[in-house]
Amino acid sequence: MAKINENYLKLQAGYLFPEIERRMNEYTRINPASKIIKMGIGDVTLPLVPSVIKAFHEGVDEMSKIKTFRGYGPYEGYRFLREAIVKNDYNSRGVKIDIDEVFISDGSKSDTGNIQEIFGNDNRIAITDPVYPVYVDTSVMAGRTGKMQDDGYFEGIIYMPCTEDNNFIPDIPREKADIIYLCFPNNPTGATASKEDLKKWVDYAASGNSVILYDSAYEAYIQDDKIPHSIYEIEGARKVAVEFRSFSKTAGFTGTRCAYAVIPKELMVLTPKGDRYPLHSLWYRRQSTKFNGTSYPVQKAAYAVYSEAGRKEVSEVIQYYMENARIMREKLSQLAFRVYGGINAPYVWVKSTKDIDSWKLFDKLLRDANVVATPGSGFGPSGEGYLRFSAFALRDNVLEAMERIKNIRL
Amino acid sequence: MAKINENYLKLQAGYLFPEIERRMNEYTRINPASKIIKMGIGDVTLPLVPSVIKAFHEGVDEMSKIKTFRGYGPYEGYRFLREAIVKNDYNSRGVKIDIDEVFISDGSKSDTGNIQEIFGNDNRIAITDPVYPVYVDTSVMAGRTGKMQDDGYFEGIIYMPCTEDNNFIPDIPREKADIIYLCFPNNPTGATASKEDLKKWVDYAASGNSVILYDSAYEAYIQDDKIPHSIYEIEGARKVAVEFRSFSKTAGFTGTRCAYAVIPKELMVLTPKGDRYPLHSLWYRRQSTKFNGTSYPVQKAAYAVYSEAGRKEVSEVIQYYMENARIMREKLSQLAFRVYGGINAPYVWVKSTKDIDSWKLFDKLLRDANVVATPGSGFGPSGEGYLRFSAFALRDNVLEAMERIKNIRL
Repeated sequence: MAKINENYLKLQAGYLFPEIERRMNEYTRINPASKIIKMGIGDVTLPLVPSVIKAFHEGVDEMSKIKTFRGYGPYEGYRFLREAIVKNDYNSRGVKIDIDEVFISDGSKSDTGNIQEIFGNDNRIAITDPVYPVYVDTSVMAGRTGKMQDDGYFEGIIYMPCTEDNNFIPDIPREKADIIYLCFPNNPTGATASKEDLKKWVDYAASGNSVILYDSAYEAYIQDDKIPHSIYEIEGARKVAVEFRSFSKTAGFTGTRCAYAVIPKELMVLTPKGDRYPLHSLWYRRQSTKFNGTSYPVQKAAYAVYSEAGRKEVSEVIQYYMENARIMREKLSQLAFRVYGGINAPYVWVKSTKDIDSWKLFDKLLRDANVVATPGSGFGPSGEGYLRFSAFALRDNVLEAMERIKNIRL
Repeated sequence: MAKINENYLKLQAGYLFPEIERRMNEYTRINPASKIIKMGIGDVTLPLVPSVIKAFHEGVDEMSKIKTFRGYGPYEGYRFLREAIVKNDYNSRGVKIDIDEVFISDGSKSDTGNIQEIFGNDNRIAITDPVYPVYVDTSVMAGRTGKMQDDGYFEGIIYMPCTEDNNFIPDIPREKADIIYLCFPNNPTGATASKEDLKKWVDYAASGNSVILYDSAYEAYIQDDKIPHSIYEIEGARKVAVEFRSFSKTAGFTGTRCAYAVIPKELMVLTPKGDRYPLHSLWYRRQSTKFNGTSYPVQKAAYAVYSEAGRKEVSEVIQYYMENARIMREKLSQLAFRVYGGINAPYVWVKSTKDIDSWKLFDKLLRDANVVATPGSGFGPSGEGYLRFSAFALRDNVLEAMERIKNIRL
């Protein structure tokens, strides 16, 4: 008799975004004339830039001729792309990364979830609260937690609250965590970590042989020169941290699919006998056994992000979104909201000055302004009362949404 | 302290294909002038067909304009593609599949491995021997096996030998299996299952509430009208079987990446309390949490496989490869080989009439003929003595390889 993975039964009814989708569809079914502005799911709206489109077409053309056709590619991605990543994303910031330490994939969502497979079940996971739901849900699915308790926390996970009190930077937990998910610039709060903040984490991980899973999917949105883009800018990080990056937000690849993970070769984890084993080998084994590489034309398109023209075009798109964030910060600050993030991150994290919970706030905005934002409580108990506004919208929609929100009574 | 998934330590040194690659590279390093013909890894060589290329370009163009740009797509894939699949791959053969039962992915390798996550760890897995290594290795990595024993079998797996004696069709095991991997047309043996063969399996699964994971990645190579393309052509299969299909071998997508899984809604598995739970919901949860959909232009390209021109073009490519298979069968039969497969499958499975083991045969062919085939023993102990020849080669290379092999002394 085939039996299910019972850990799935511990999950909450819906993953956050499908639930938003459901409420939105329900509303438009009853109010078909409403024109909803989506500032909820963090999905980009501007098209791929010209250099990327050109390279994408070239990649497709290569697939049309025997001489240039590509079948199965390297499991870890094409060297041309990995070289460009090392040079542009790391060497340019004084960080040394070996080309073999970069693994191309179809998305950071896959990577940040799948990486759990190479760790034993007896690892204790620490996450921030609020947090990108994928880290929690994949931990639950893997059986690393108990049930969800009445307070909204899963047993077995170490939660690190990020609130106004600590400026949304998690404190080092008093308990021992084996695996720590960190994400900066943060989704959903838009907070960033300084080098000093990250140094504390690297030291904590080093002292306990823990591993940091560092999601820097939003690094391209950093405006302040002093903020680190990579955890490897911190001394000692190569021994304790895996880094995830994506072309999704950097270059509009949410529907095109390309990302990468970096696993330094000196990052060691323990075998049951107490020997040290390179995490890098485990991930290579995982990827070569369960993944067959990212689409070749897509890798070629991603490569174009690093061309001179590509960099310029992509940077203009980012500035466009950041201007959206600036507008939202400005407008929302004038209303009954306290406003965070949106300066070095594409997310604006707002709390009503009145005591209204996130889903009520969501429903109110949906109903009275036809604007969709993401309920902060969907990211964890400490997100209660907040809404996340995404800057990945078209300018007219941002202005229109702000105008509509101005007129509703909270 | 972060601890590894110790199950990885049970795996053999190298996944089969990296090991072939290693030996090949080692040989060419010492003999740089040698011109190696690869008939090992089952990778296609002909380019994407014109209809697919055209649609692929159109998909890329859509990504270049605000109005037609696509961000995150549905986790389960675009409806236009799922509709075409249902109509062309199923309805056309009298099989009813609901559009919601089709999940688009980046590859069957991902799907056949990842699907294990939604089952509990206390399921017993049955696989054929020889077998596509991914089914075994992912079972080992998930902790569903013990160690590898001296006979090359992992403890805890039910192996079903496929040999000349049973015409490479596995016998129903006497033990109870919870999850059964079947693949027809078979990789590596090229054997096919009749409706009667599959009926026995469906009945066996139904009687024990087991689940069949049916890999029909090679169904497009079936020439004989009587052979089923889908397990759903068998009555009762909707209650017991998941089916995996891929555009990789059907339409040359090995480097482009698109595949799909079908999970009928009435397929139920047991919860620990003994309740019945739809596997479909679990897979949707898995995919929506750990996967962000397949690249949009790739899905658009896959869709073109179902156009009138696309079907014709793809079928010509398949006939080209099948003519390769015919030539290989003919030539290898004239040598000191017993030859199987290659009639309704792109793989020719050969055994030396002399007593030579697979890797020795591999090394001999590599050294004396500069031809690479896949050692049968890499697919499991019952593959010992065999080589798998792939028909996915260019015609001249097939003819040249056969000529070279003719001249070596086995």
